[in-house]
Amino acid sequence: MPQSISFIGLGIMGQPMALNLVKAGFPVTVFNRTRRKAEPLERAGARVASSPAEVARDADVIISIVSDTAAMEEVVCGKDGILEAIRSGAVLIDSSTISPTVSRRLACQLAAKGASMLDAPVTGSKHGAEKGELTFMIGGEREVMERVLPVLKVLGKRHIYCGEHGLGLAAKLAMNCILATTVEIFSEGFVLATKAGVPPETLLEIMQSSLARAAIVDFKAPFVFKGDFTPYFPLKLMHKDLELAMEAAYAQNVPMPATAAVKEVYAGAKAQGQGDRDYAAVITFLEELAGIQVRVAPAP
Amino acid sequence: MPQSISFIGLGIMGQPMALNLVKAGFPVTVFNRTRRKAEPLERAGARVASSPAEVARDADVIISIVSDTAAMEEVVCGKDGILEAIRSGAVLIDSSTISPTVSRRLACQLAAKGASMLDAPVTGSKHGAEKGELTFMIGGEREVMERVLPVLKVLGKRHIYCGEHGLGLAAKLAMNCILATTVEIFSEGFVLATKAGVPPETLLEIMQSSLARAAIVDFKAPFVFKGDFTPYFPLKLMHKDLELAMEAAYAQNVPMPATAAVKEVYAGAKAQGQGDRDYAAVITFLEELAGIQVRVAPAP
Amino acid sequence: MPQSISFIGLGIMGQPMALNLVKAGFPVTVFNRTRRKAEPLERAGARVASSPAEVARDADVIISIVSDTAAMEEVVCGKDGILEAIRSGAVLIDSSTISPTVSRRLACQLAAKGASMLDAPVTGSKHGAEKGELTFMIGGEREVMERVLPVLKVLGKRHIYCGEHGLGLAAKLAMNCILATTVEIFSEGFVLATKAGVPPETLLEIMQSSLARAAIVDFKAPFVFKGDFTPYFPLKLMHKDLELAMEAAYAQNVPMPATAAVKEVYAGAKAQGQGDRDYAAVITFLEELAGIQVRVAPAP
Amino acid sequence: MPQSISFIGLGIMGQPMALNLVKAGFPVTVFNRTRRKAEPLERAGARVASSPAEVARDADVIISIVSDTAAMEEVVCGKDGILEAIRSGAVLIDSSTISPTVSRRLACQLAAKGASMLDAPVTGSKHGAEKGELTFMIGGEREVMERVLPVLKVLGKRHIYCGEHGLGLAAKLAMNCILATTVEIFSEGFVLATKAGVPPETLLEIMQSSLARAAIVDFKAPFVFKGDFTPYFPLKLMHKDLELAMEAAYAQNVPMPATAAVKEVYAGAKAQGQGDRDYAAVITFLEELAGIQVRVAPAP
Repeated sequence: MPQSISFIGLGIMGQPMALNLVKAGFPVTVFNRTRRKAEPLERAGARVASSPAEVARDADVIISIVSDTAAMEEVVCGKDGILEAIRSGAVLIDSSTISPTVSRRLACQLAAKGASMLDAPVTGSKHGAEKGELTFMIGGEREVMERVLPVLKVLGKRHIYCGEHGLGLAAKLAMNCILATTVEIFSEGFVLATKAGVPPETLLEIMQSSLARAAIVDFKAPFVFKGDFTPYFPLKLMHKDLELAMEAAYAQNVPMPATAAVKEVYAGAKAQGQGDRDYAAVITFLEELAGIQVRVAPAP
Repeated sequence: MPQSISFIGLGIMGQPMALNLVKAGFPVTVFNRTRRKAEPLERAGARVASSPAEVARDADVIISIVSDTAAMEEVVCGKDGILEAIRSGAVLIDSSTISPTVSRRLACQLAAKGASMLDAPVTGSKHGAEKGELTFMIGGEREVMERVLPVLKVLGKRHIYCGEHGLGLAAKLAMNCILATTVEIFSEGFVLATKAGVPPETLLEIMQSSLARAAIVDFKAPFVFKGDFTPYFPLKLMHKDLELAMEAAYAQNVPMPATAAVKEVYAGAKAQGQGDRDYAAVITFLEELAGIQVRVAPAP
Repeated sequence: MPQSISFIGLGIMGQPMALNLVKAGFPVTVFNRTRRKAEPLERAGARVASSPAEVARDADVIISIVSDTAAMEEVVCGKDGILEAIRSGAVLIDSSTISPTVSRRLACQLAAKGASMLDAPVTGSKHGAEKGELTFMIGGEREVMERVLPVLKVLGKRHIYCGEHGLGLAAKLAMNCILATTVEIFSEGFVLATKAGVPPETLLEIMQSSLARAAIVDFKAPFVFKGDFTPYFPLKLMHKDLELAMEAAYAQNVPMPATAAVKEVYAGAKAQGQGDRDYAAVITFLEELAGIQVRVAPAP
Repeated sequence: MPQSISFIGLGIMGQPMALNLVKAGFPVTVFNRTRRKAEPLERAGARVASSPAEVARDADVIISIVSDTAAMEEVVCGKDGILEAIRSGAVLIDSSTISPTVSRRLACQLAAKGASMLDAPVTGSKHGAEKGELTFMIGGEREVMERVLPVLKVLGKRHIYCGEHGLGLAAKLAMNCILATTVEIFSEGFVLATKAGVPPETLLEIMQSSLARAAIVDFKAPFVFKGDFTPYFPLKLMHKDLELAMEAAYAQNVPMPATAAVKEVYAGAKAQGQGDRDYAAVITFLEELAGIQVRVAPAP
């Protein structure tokens, strides 16, 4: 059982994850670039550090979840970064969705200091983070994963070992390609049928009772039908994940023609100003061109 | 209740559909271009006609399910076609997946003879056809649909009214865009992750327990993992439906960038000789390029 | 030398083509759906007919250039169409850009009446039509082409025999795929570089002095740089030709992934209301998303 | 006039470029990872160094042209890299095609040492390198460019100033998107027309006499028609440049749907084993699927 845990990155996901660790009784030190976001954790009993190095100095386990590859490189390799201070034997669990290539390089740099790293991106959204019900996709040494399982079990209910360094990220990126494309093709199909004159709720009823049923469509369709694009997962982050997936495809020498096309539709929606809305807002890009909206009046 | 029913097109779907009508006690006359395929129906008690015109002459209700738009135009407008002989007051229920534009034109031509037409494509595969559990997506006049419901209820358990002529087809094409794309993006995601080193069954487990879950993937993945591409729905027909969807998108002035990209992957797989296998064989196009196969050894 | 020539379709191209035939001394009968457009020809000495059948009745050679496949089917097979009246031995030269499949079928129907057909789409724009400097891409029997060369030589300066029925159209569609894509990729490249900060005239200078030089870019860039999208060839017609090319690709079992992607960008621009402007207006679709314009202030 | 010049990267382009500098009378020190490739330069009178640092130590001007972003980062920031030894006041001219973002970062790092950097990618192929007729697209400070013009004039005949750091690369990437797409769409168009039955030389003749004429097609077509894919510019490098362009598009928030689609066709051709052949070999990807080859028998 680790003596002390550090947490870096207190965004939409990181905030509730860190809080769950505090509530579980772990001594927790936190760091966030914008210090203000650390206040709720401080009130809950966490210690607040002023740099990743300070956070790393005494930690057995460090968990990070930051916004992109560059931010994670800065956290680890930058001035006052983790690399300067991490102890031999410590473990860095990175739950950020970043480039698998960079993640593997960071794991090497940490190994040179005697520390270990797991890439452990999550699925389950803010809701799952709050309830401690996330799913972790884990890459790195299995033995290291098993060592930190007591910590991971506070944060999630499924911890799936995917293989060596980078494979947790590979699984996450493959999954997000599938999610992004499912939501985009739902948009194309519903815009086409709606413009032709089929009521969207009728098409949804047909789909739901067929093999075309998709869980993400069950979840998103009611929001789309109301035009409610409050972000569960912001479109700009899905676009970023598609970019990472295409980089991985380049590295693996795998053609991804549909992902490539879908990424450019998200690029269009982001360029149109939809980046901070939910990624289901990708439909608005097609709706605007088609001159119709896929909306359903609420039942009276 | 109709006095007599005619059935045109005794392929994979038509054969069991016609048989169910005979079993339900209707007097059934059948026609198929290749006469040999009519023999099982003849043995079951159906009368075999030698042209669409002959089939149409005495029928209250005619059901057709043929392979493509050109075949349907020939059946209706060709020499000895339905138009030459259909009675005023009769109803043609066309369950073929064809061009909505052409379907609407055929409906006009029949209307000029006092007959009605419904576009009523189905979903549910051969299995659903055998069990009388198909879902019908129906376009045309609602009153006409209600009139022939006793017949349709023998063939399927869901009959969803989509709107005016062509909208049954519009719904079907939107749905097949979604199905074709879901299977293709599953292929891209799994080829990428598998080549990186993630075991496919691990990725499937992650997806199945997440919002990325899709019913068609639940159904197809076990076959893909065995390399079994026995056709439930042949790839060349899915490619044809994507072509019809793109024609509809052109007619409706709706951009469909993902569907367009996906169609060319199916075109590639078809050009590679996969046209007669199940459409899940689209994965082999990517597998061959990636130099790996998404296979799972059976549990011992 | 033909005794009499008929001309169907007096649009942007047809008008000057028919006029050149009158000026060359041929007895010319013309037909246009909107009669008003025939007036300039009438003033120049042409006879105006009231239907394609009337036009066809006495003609040795009929030339047609109409807007799309459906219009051409109507002209040939519709009520008072060419088929009802064409003489045995007459030749129909169709310069419309239509479906090769439909064109081949029309050629068969005419052959059954003892008449011949050539598919003879043109390149060279309104300017070339006025000067009699069009290039014809010709499909059909070579002997028939040679028989009508005296007429074709009035209209154009190059007459390239491409092979059997439909191959003039196949060549034209391949060429328009290339033109449409060249203009679209010029747009992508220039929007990217301009947004980064490279002056467009600098990039054009680099391209013009390199192997990336394209004649269509030399021609279109000055108009784009001024934001002048006066139609030489309307975007909606280029979009139609891309649709025809994709249909031909489907028929030939040839994957066309770039053409497919480019078509959807034109679809987007058309949906945005650019259909009647020059097809170079496809750039505005990307410009609007990128939030910049590829413009160059005129030299003082 | 610089006292001494260093040159890093003696590949297909670097070899003749360095040789021209020696011939022009400059004292030249060279470095290449594989020492053997430095031998021709040594015989010609260049000094051979054993690391980028050694090369940098006494140089007024350093020219680099290496294969990719990672190689350039290693050359500048790695152990015994340029950063360790470059003099204040020296200039690094990087003619590699690498990430503009990384290039800008390297320029910052050099500035911190008092040195300057220009991104100066070239066009003109091996041939242009040999003859000293390259075109340079230059980003960085104009004053720095003017200072090193005497050196650049030995290597090329055109030196086009594109703007601040990274804009030479932005121009180069835009240009290569256009080149890659032109060659790919030529492939699609010619495969479609050839399969339909149009002789490729006929289609080329039509194109060459029209606005569809492209200089790169004039250059590549004769090689394609012979099936000769000896590399002028290897397909894997064009694929890399498309990847860099897509990264730049992501950074600039510019959708690039055609470039995205074209990149995946190059990815397919590379995955098929065409990476080391000329990038015109992208056509073989489509030819194999279409089951035909775009070849022309030599005139007897």
